[in-house]
Formats: sequence, structure tokens, C-alpha cells
Amino acid sequence: MAERKNRKPDWVIAKERAKKASAAETIWLFGLHAVRDALANPAREKLRLVVTQNALDRLGDVFGMEPEITDARVFDRVVGLPPDSVHQGCALEVRPLSWGSLDEIAVTGAGRPIIVALDRVTDPHNVGAILRSAEVFGARAVIAPARHTAPETGALAKTASGALERQPYLRIGNLADALIQLKDVGYVVIGLAGEADSPLEDVLEQADNRPVCIVLGAEGPGLREKTRETCDYLAQIAFAGQFGSLNVSNAAAISLYATARRFTSG
Amino acid sequence: MAERKNRKPDWVIAKERAKKASAAETIWLFGLHAVRDALANPAREKLRLVVTQNALDRLGDVFGMEPEITDARVFDRVVGLPPDSVHQGCALEVRPLSWGSLDEIAVTGAGRPIIVALDRVTDPHNVGAILRSAEVFGARAVIAPARHTAPETGALAKTASGALERQPYLRIGNLADALIQLKDVGYVVIGLAGEADSPLEDVLEQADNRPVCIVLGAEGPGLREKTRETCDYLAQIAFAGQFGSLNVSNAAAISLYATARRFTSG
Repeated sequence: MAERKNRKPDWVIAKERAKKASAAETIWLFGLHAVRDALANPAREKLRLVVTQNALDRLGDVFGMEPEITDARVFDRVVGLPPDSVHQGCALEVRPLSWGSLDEIAVTGAGRPIIVALDRVTDPHNVGAILRSAEVFGARAVIAPARHTAPETGALAKTASGALERQPYLRIGNLADALIQLKDVGYVVIGLAGEADSPLEDVLEQADNRPVCIVLGAEGPGLREKTRETCDYLAQIAFAGQFGSLNVSNAAAISLYATARRFTSG
Repeated sequence: MAERKNRKPDWVIAKERAKKASAAETIWLFGLHAVRDALANPAREKLRLVVTQNALDRLGDVFGMEPEITDARVFDRVVGLPPDSVHQGCALEVRPLSWGSLDEIAVTGAGRPIIVALDRVTDPHNVGAILRSAEVFGARAVIAPARHTAPETGALAKTASGALERQPYLRIGNLADALIQLKDVGYVVIGLAGEADSPLEDVLEQADNRPVCIVLGAEGPGLREKTRETCDYLAQIAFAGQFGSLNVSNAAAISLYATARRFTSG
């Protein structure tokens, strides 16, 4: 009995390890806008603020942080951002935000019962723009697998233009499992696929007033087989011509608009 | 009389000079996808094709061009692209496409009578994504002032993912003049402005079945005063929340979707 008490099941150990690893993970946010938004966010755990004197003057309130003032010429060496980062002389080391469990946010989260699920969308600029649109249309969350997705980086934060601080962005283990979880709590799961027969508007009409999860894949490969099988419906964006294809963040924006529209008029 | 014959009015000389200058302008397209699309486009005037042997093998048909095969190590020096260009070892020097006059394309162009006008949108990735969406929803043209707009570069072509070859993209002199020209031939000109009271859908309803021009400004400054004054209506994208703002290419995609939708159901 005493022995059992001390020994945790393997899956508990694995889960704890993953939690520890993710807590150890830190991100460098950069640029005046992104840093200002993160500083103003009380939920954001901040570790180091590195700034040039000029950037500090422009930054305004640092919310009690002790800034490390650095010469512009050595800034890049101190912080170590990717070479093309437009950092404007300021960077803030933070931990990823914790948004709680998917179940919780899906059922009782703020905003409209709309969730955007991303299947291996790896470009940080696309994910950043999707977070912006999700915030604008009041989606409850954007979810994406922890692996094979754009990580929460400074580049993503910059494109998200503040939305990273406010829009729940949940990194989950397995996408198909998460979609099943959403179905269990009443979500209709709609996968966007260019070759689908049904227009999104028709499928949304069938979904009626039920919560909706829109699933988008990466440009090119699209949705994975397992993801497609898990969706309740596959749909395409209507009124589009034969030629060309939408950028994934544009497809997300249109889907969010069409879904929010239905909730408003429905 | 003989003297007058030989002397052209100043404005004619200026116009001819501008035409000559624009004809002298060339662009380096790069990347397999963009180069392949341009090679396959008979309307595109091609000057030089520079490739590595490996890229040439992957390129397939070169449509009669004489490729200059270059060693991968000297490729950058031969072509002189911006340092972060993902060229995949192939680049094609071309002249900008000529799409004819605005009047002509507005009245008798292919596709739906929808035009997207850009007021100083300078980011090539945004303009590229807008060209893609314009093509998908069958817009007649995207127009933008020749100055203070993302030029037709390789980076723009790459984001446009082939749409630059197929979607009319007209560089005009003065935007307000072009909008008036569009109004004269029957277009309803709708400017997107976050602070406008009318939702886009209501304004589109009022526009009924008339041709529509959607005007978008750069993020931040938005539409210029002169542009706003020239619009028939100012509208905002509905169902959006209080917080955040859409990326300009996402706003364009939603507007195109909403407009195409009205033409289809109207």
C-alpha cells in the first residue's frame, strides 16, 4: 500500500513532465506594440525586459518591471532574436499564457461559441492574423496541436498585433481527440476543404444555433485524413471561382465572419 | 504652323516619358511556382531566365526561353534579389503586365463587376494575398496608385501564388480621380472604415445590383481624407467585436466574399 502511494502511473508522470517542460519554455516578445500589450497584461508572466534608452522612453509605463537598458549596438547579442526581427530596441522575455482546459473554455469561455482549430498551420504570420480575426469576431478560442504548429513566438505576437494577449490560443495534444471532445460538449465540427460539395453557408444553416468549430488545414496538404474523418461536415467557401485558392488566414477570416453572422441573425 | 507641329504639349511629353519609364521597368520574379506561372503566361514579356541546373530540372517546360544556367553559389550575385528571398534557384526577369485602361476593364472586363481599390497599402504580402482573394471571388480588377503602393515585385508575386499572372492589377495615377471615373460608369464606391456606422451588408443591399468598388486603406492611417470624401458610402465589417482590428488582406477577403455573395443571391 505504502509502495503504491509513492508510485504514480506512467501517464501521470508523462503529463507532469510535459507540464514542467512547458513551464520552463520562455518566449522573447519584441517590438513596441507587442511588448507594451504584454506588459499591460496582468495574466502574463514576465521575466526580463531588455530595452534601449530610446525604446524605454517610447514604451511608457513598464508596470513595475526593472528594465535592463542596453546599447543599441549590442542589443541583438543580448537578446538573440532571429536576424530579420524588427524589434525597435525592445524585447520582453515571457512565459506562454495559460488559458485553462479546452472543456472549460469551450463551454463557459467568453465570446461566441465559435472555435477555430488549426491542423498543422506552421506559418507564424498566418497564425498571428488568425488570432486577430478570432478576436475581432469574438471566437472562444483558437486551438492547435502543440507539435507541427507555429509556436508562440515574437514573430507570431507581432502579426497578432496584441491579440496574443487577449485571444485564448490553446496548444493541445492530439487534434482529432480535441475535436471529439468538442463534439461531446455539443459543438458541430466543420472542416474547410476546397473540394467539398457543400457551401459553408448551407452547413452553418444546418448547424443552426449549436456551437461551431471550424477546422482549417495548411495550404497545400489541407486537412489530414484523420482530421477529415473526425469532422461532422466538410464544406467549402461559397461564391469562389474555379481559379486560385485563398490564403489560410483569409479563409479563416471569411469563415469567422460567416459564422458570427449566423449567430447574430439566428 | 510648322513649329506647332513639332512641339507637343507638356502634358503629352510627360505622359510619354512616364510610359517610357514604365516600359523600361523590369521585375525579377523568383521561386519555382511564380516563375512557372509567368513562363506559362503568353501575355507576360520575359527577358531573362536564370536557374541552377537543379531548378531547371524541377521547372519543366521553359516555353522556348534560353535558360542561363548558374552555379548555386553565385546565383545571388547574378540576380541580386533581396537577401531573404526564397528563390529556389530560379528567377525570371519580366516586364510588368499591361492590363489596359481602367474604363475598359471596369465596364467589359471578365468576372463579377467588383473592383478592389487600395489606398496606400504598402506591404507586398498583403497586396499579394488581396490579389489571390480578388481572383478567387472573380473581381474585375485590383487598382492602386502607382506611388505609395507595394510595387509589383518578386515578393508580391510569391504571396500572390500565381494570381499576379491572372488577376488584373492596375497601377493608376490618382486614386480619387480613378474612383470618380468608376462612379461615372456606374460603380458604387464603398470605403471600409472601422469607425463607420453602417455595416457593409446594409450598404451592399442599398447598392443593389450595381457594380461595386471596395476601397481599403493601410492599417493604422486608414483611408486618406480625399479618398473618404470621394466614396459614396463608408461602411464597417459587421459582427465584429469592439476589440482588435482585422489585417487589411483579411478585411479585403471578407468584403469580397460579402460582395460576391450579394451578386450571386441578388
